[in-house]
Amino acid sequence: MRTPQVVVAMDWGGTWTRTAVINRQGEILWQAREPNPQNGSKEEYLTNAEKLLANAIDQAIGPVAGIGAAVAGPVEPTTGTFFQPPNLMVLDGVSFKALWEKAFNVPVWVGNDANLAALGEHYYGAGKESADTGRPVKTLFYVTVSTGVGGGVVDNGSVFLGANGLTGEIGHTLVDTSSSALTCQCGATGCLEAMASGTGIERIARQKVASGDFSESVLAELDAGSLDSEAVFDAAGKNDPLAMSIVAGAVSALAIGLTNVVHLFNPDMIVLGGGVTQGLVKLDLLPRIDQGIRERTMSELHKEFQLTSARLGDSVGLAGAAALVWDQLAAEG
Amino acid sequence: MRTPQVVVAMDWGGTWTRTAVINRQGEILWQAREPNPQNGSKEEYLTNAEKLLANAIDQAIGPVAGIGAAVAGPVEPTTGTFFQPPNLMVLDGVSFKALWEKAFNVPVWVGNDANLAALGEHYYGAGKESADTGRPVKTLFYVTVSTGVGGGVVDNGSVFLGANGLTGEIGHTLVDTSSSALTCQCGATGCLEAMASGTGIERIARQKVASGDFSESVLAELDAGSLDSEAVFDAAGKNDPLAMSIVAGAVSALAIGLTNVVHLFNPDMIVLGGGVTQGLVKLDLLPRIDQGIRERTMSELHKEFQLTSARLGDSVGLAGAAALVWDQLAAEG
Repeated sequence: MRTPQVVVAMDWGGTWTRTAVINRQGEILWQAREPNPQNGSKEEYLTNAEKLLANAIDQAIGPVAGIGAAVAGPVEPTTGTFFQPPNLMVLDGVSFKALWEKAFNVPVWVGNDANLAALGEHYYGAGKESADTGRPVKTLFYVTVSTGVGGGVVDNGSVFLGANGLTGEIGHTLVDTSSSALTCQCGATGCLEAMASGTGIERIARQKVASGDFSESVLAELDAGSLDSEAVFDAAGKNDPLAMSIVAGAVSALAIGLTNVVHLFNPDMIVLGGGVTQGLVKLDLLPRIDQGIRERTMSELHKEFQLTSARLGDSVGLAGAAALVWDQLAAEG
Repeated sequence: MRTPQVVVAMDWGGTWTRTAVINRQGEILWQAREPNPQNGSKEEYLTNAEKLLANAIDQAIGPVAGIGAAVAGPVEPTTGTFFQPPNLMVLDGVSFKALWEKAFNVPVWVGNDANLAALGEHYYGAGKESADTGRPVKTLFYVTVSTGVGGGVVDNGSVFLGANGLTGEIGHTLVDTSSSALTCQCGATGCLEAMASGTGIERIARQKVASGDFSESVLAELDAGSLDSEAVFDAAGKNDPLAMSIVAGAVSALAIGLTNVVHLFNPDMIVLGGGVTQGLVKLDLLPRIDQGIRERTMSELHKEFQLTSARLGDSVGLAGAAALVWDQLAAEG
């Protein structure tokens, strides 16, 4: 039997579950996307996931080297057990690894989606691009700035997991210690997520508009349903002062959070992904974040990092899940 | 020839250079301490260091497995090259590893002192104590709260080095973003070091006393030469309100900085060392720091850490240097 040249990857997100067949080069040979069951039972979720995986395995030409899955929540790395996933609490304590290895008779690895996005960008995205131009990446910090703000760390080609696989949670690092710091959904005040996430930006915009102090802003003319972070970025692009100040707050908060990351992890690459990042890129604000970090960085050696935007878009979770399988198979020799 | 059972360790600090002969259990079988040459030339420093190492090798009974050295500054981990050490600039670019392997014909490893302090506490200090009671440590974050504030990270028994060996610099993470944030020696404002280091505490106390607003404080009665961080801790122990508020500021700053560490590294052990930590321990303030972190921690799994004080005192650098040799020899098989 020849060595399998493909893996099956799954990205089990909040709304969609994606599956794909991916080769060693990270190329997606086949993929599909299905909406998750709505408020399903544990059995409904698991049956659905197995059906999607079985279908993906059928699509692979020849044998499959393993299954990798990115899931939205904490994962115990050895057993692949899902812990207290905020959006899928009925699956608390389930070991996907054990279930799927039994069902499909191939090795299975499961990881947190932000951690695996970091791994995907390392092997197949911004990290690969850097390596291909002679600058291989040793320590990559990935941040998704999206509905929430999460992150992941890759060091020497593997995910840095910490004690429980819950590393890189930059969204809940404190970037505002002033008395006017915003309260975050996690209960603490001053978290990066409260200032820079899509939800945070929308909330700040709504509060400012509701205060009545910004009636000249185009944001004040929008009906409530349209006032979201995209609208704020659109208005900032048209030089609306309120929108520009909200975006500047997010930029400043990201620079503070990432300064801390630079001093703690000494990364040589920082990759920003997610929808809010796309808004920042459109306004050409990544150089502003980069400069904000460098102004506060303590040494020249700490400044040897590249800040860049994610390359893989919506497929970053699938790419990371595939990379996890290849990485783990290589580690096992 | 039997397998060497000891290593020679060196801790090259700002004032003293310590050398020791240490066995696999981390026991110091012999040690010595010499003051560094004052404003020496590169050659004077290097000759002195070789002399101290040669003497330590003579003290070892039988062959030496290797030499480990902890130095106060950034070290490139592969070549053991010293980079821009703030207190020993004449040694910029020197590879101790190459020099000493040639001179002594044994393997040499060199590391940053805060990184190696973390490794020492992991293998021979607080981490070992935890492992001995059935709770082995996966990810240890060490902080030295002393003249300055530095740190190091051990994961899976090895130092987490990042791209350039400059990880764990918690002293220069931002813990005060208010408009009254203090300026740090690094040039940034709001760094943990400015609020919680011995130098920072002394500076705050001097500024408060000089303001004339605290004439009732015992600190105001001290002559300028005696007003240091130790005096502040002494006065806080006697319930002096000014001293208590300065110490409370340091406690709060440490709790914020360590909350960020918990969310980024997900450690299962945090170890605090250094002279300022001793002052905090005397006033029983470690539980206050612990509580301050837990109040802001986003998930139950992140709360699965122990916060404790360092066990190894002044010999932590030697212990870490020895641990580095044993760890690297084990890694090489």
